[in-house]
Amino acid sequence: MNDYLDNSNKQMKLALQLVSGYGGEFQSWRLSDSNERAYTDVRYYVELAKIAEQGKIHTLFIADTPSFGGAGGGTDISTRTPAFPLEPMVMLSAVAYATQKIGLVATFSTTYNLPYNLARQLKTLDTLSGGRVGWNAVTTSSPQTAYNFGNKPLPDTTTRYEMAHEMVEAVQTLWGTFGEHAYITDKATGVFAEMSQIQPANFVGKHYQVKGALPIPATPQGQPPIFQADPSPEGVELAGKFASGVYANPFSIEEARAYRNRLKQSAMKYGRNPNEINMFSGFMFTIGKTYEEALARRHQLLDFMSDDEFYGQIRYLSAMIGVNLMNLDINAPLPKHLQAQAMPHPHDPRSPRAVELIKQGLSPKDVLANGVINYHPVVVGTAEDVANFMEKWFKAGATDGFSLAPDSQQGVRDFVEQVVPILQQRGIFHTDYEGDTLREHLGVPYQYGVRK
Amino acid sequence: MNDYLDNSNKQMKLALQLVSGYGGEFQSWRLSDSNERAYTDVRYYVELAKIAEQGKIHTLFIADTPSFGGAGGGTDISTRTPAFPLEPMVMLSAVAYATQKIGLVATFSTTYNLPYNLARQLKTLDTLSGGRVGWNAVTTSSPQTAYNFGNKPLPDTTTRYEMAHEMVEAVQTLWGTFGEHAYITDKATGVFAEMSQIQPANFVGKHYQVKGALPIPATPQGQPPIFQADPSPEGVELAGKFASGVYANPFSIEEARAYRNRLKQSAMKYGRNPNEINMFSGFMFTIGKTYEEALARRHQLLDFMSDDEFYGQIRYLSAMIGVNLMNLDINAPLPKHLQAQAMPHPHDPRSPRAVELIKQGLSPKDVLANGVINYHPVVVGTAEDVANFMEKWFKAGATDGFSLAPDSQQGVRDFVEQVVPILQQRGIFHTDYEGDTLREHLGVPYQYGVRK
Repeated sequence: MNDYLDNSNKQMKLALQLVSGYGGEFQSWRLSDSNERAYTDVRYYVELAKIAEQGKIHTLFIADTPSFGGAGGGTDISTRTPAFPLEPMVMLSAVAYATQKIGLVATFSTTYNLPYNLARQLKTLDTLSGGRVGWNAVTTSSPQTAYNFGNKPLPDTTTRYEMAHEMVEAVQTLWGTFGEHAYITDKATGVFAEMSQIQPANFVGKHYQVKGALPIPATPQGQPPIFQADPSPEGVELAGKFASGVYANPFSIEEARAYRNRLKQSAMKYGRNPNEINMFSGFMFTIGKTYEEALARRHQLLDFMSDDEFYGQIRYLSAMIGVNLMNLDINAPLPKHLQAQAMPHPHDPRSPRAVELIKQGLSPKDVLANGVINYHPVVVGTAEDVANFMEKWFKAGATDGFSLAPDSQQGVRDFVEQVVPILQQRGIFHTDYEGDTLREHLGVPYQYGVRK
Repeated sequence: MNDYLDNSNKQMKLALQLVSGYGGEFQSWRLSDSNERAYTDVRYYVELAKIAEQGKIHTLFIADTPSFGGAGGGTDISTRTPAFPLEPMVMLSAVAYATQKIGLVATFSTTYNLPYNLARQLKTLDTLSGGRVGWNAVTTSSPQTAYNFGNKPLPDTTTRYEMAHEMVEAVQTLWGTFGEHAYITDKATGVFAEMSQIQPANFVGKHYQVKGALPIPATPQGQPPIFQADPSPEGVELAGKFASGVYANPFSIEEARAYRNRLKQSAMKYGRNPNEINMFSGFMFTIGKTYEEALARRHQLLDFMSDDEFYGQIRYLSAMIGVNLMNLDINAPLPKHLQAQAMPHPHDPRSPRAVELIKQGLSPKDVLANGVINYHPVVVGTAEDVANFMEKWFKAGATDGFSLAPDSQQGVRDFVEQVVPILQQRGIFHTDYEGDTLREHLGVPYQYGVRK
């Protein structure tokens, strides 16, 4: 294992995905312990953020897209919650005001923003939060979303990545225009700012041009660090050049470690220290006092699904394991000969886990309840089980940390109260924040303007 | 006087301009009672907002421009504070979180924004604040600012106003896409949202096109009301069609009343009730226990100016009154024959006041200290003097209210503690908020989507 993948002397870094305020399961709003109006209730986002802060979670992470959500641009939310919260720049400002330490990272499109406005809002948020903001700089890839921004189709991948590199550079250039030591405010001498240290951006790109300066002084962390989330070669390139954090969606230790290696290599290619780029692997869980209690909670979520949705999942599971489940008893283990037939679908990385559980004799419904179709690996079990999974991945050098998507609002509390103490006891998670800024929490060096 | 200009049975409406956190005088950051880092200190904006809320001020008002500020795109802030605060969408979200009642109105350009992002942010802020947001929808008119948004010159006035009408319509259309009663969240039936009531925007303009829906339910006031601030014929047209509030800069009662009449006429032309459009006249003041104490405070501010800046003001005053003051004793009354020569400059509406004070025998420096070159009318005097000015304008039907720019942070406190009680005692200012939303405070009818 390469040195930079070795985690023996490291501690894991954790991000909490707030999703739309309900947690990672889109039916969890119906649980008795859920606030069903969390989506529009900023005080609830704040409550979750404060709980996460008590648990020393490094940062919140808000995935976002400027549309109604979903690849089709119009998610059906008749029975499920949205995949994204209210606009994150605005929402996080209120959260920043109500918290002290936790990082605040959100997605803002490199395709559908104006660099001056984006740079100004992000640096304002970084100022107001005392230097706790990070920008997940991703290209918008949904063709439908393009039409929310004019009657023009989505640019092709090459163009979108050209735009992404330019957007990050334009924004960082703007951030550096107000000299690091230009904010004087000396009542005695009457000097408010040192104008000679404030210079126009004069950024001229193929897609973006920005002339003026940004009237915002350096924040306690200089400026927000960059995050990335696209595992394509173009995304890895962008991450290697700019990113301090990467949100990843691997389903196995091997897949994760290989991806982590690619990210670190990409950073080194751009003359950076591989430790400066942190991979956060998406991870979901449902916690109970016992496995049975956790599984019962998952059954409740499955039972909230409409028949259409539920049998859609059974059909999908059939494809994953190569066995048609539609006419079988979904509450009983498969007959032995069908268990033997089950084999993972080669194009779905979640299939091996589904087959494994089928062969253990779990009923199809129990296999679903174990979250095999979720968009991240899932642990359904005790706090100990959750901690064990995380330790195993971390010790194996698969990841720098995790991007947590608890099943529900209660899942956030459960994680902080039950899992965090175990991780701390095992020495693989910090017992306090490293400083006051996101860069300090993550061990990412101070930066101002573009990297020299 | 037209009925709709008659204020005998009305109460005035008040907005507080936060400017950059220091008040309306750009030297006030040096006063001993000022927080010199207010510009970057959100807790200070919050403190001022809370004081204003105690005083039942209807709304905060943030003038803004997406540039370093100033017509030239690069204000010199070596000794003066900026004219605008940090980015207002982000800043106001924190203020919204920390307050309960006060309105939150800010400028967002109709020229340099993307409609989907702007609509989403404004409605998010309106959601988080419980329906207290207003949008000052103005075109960007600075040629330099244009180059912060690409290598293209500022569009001409006609085009910018076409864009402004389209931008407001696109944003209001988006606000209406998520049906007013579509947010169900019924745990018992499992219905989260009524999808049949959520419809795409399908807005097709010449300058802006937006296809999708906005995933945000109606706020307690439906959606933010529109404000306007440009007194040009195009601005009055835009205001008449859309605005519930207009920020105005008249220097005399006659000028104000005529403008107010034009605004109400423009609203009626669009089939609206003239009472739905509220004119807020910009107004500045410095309060002391006596006139002499207030004047001394203004002298302190003048003394904070560099010689260049101060003599620039003397030169400007010379032009306003038609008498060259450069070689005279600026601390003594003008010789009688020069007092007699003084006459107002025909193109500066502030000149009559300057001439009046010169003829009263005030020294040039005292005339300046009375704020004759300020961008709004100024009262330097006691709380009673300030209240008298406001009552006189209001009773004369000159305005629906005022957009207050106190000299300094202390000026906000002084106004709330000393002037508000006088206005309330005289029955011309409310003693409590009318409801919980900005529309309720202003008596503006509920609206959702575009006006039918």
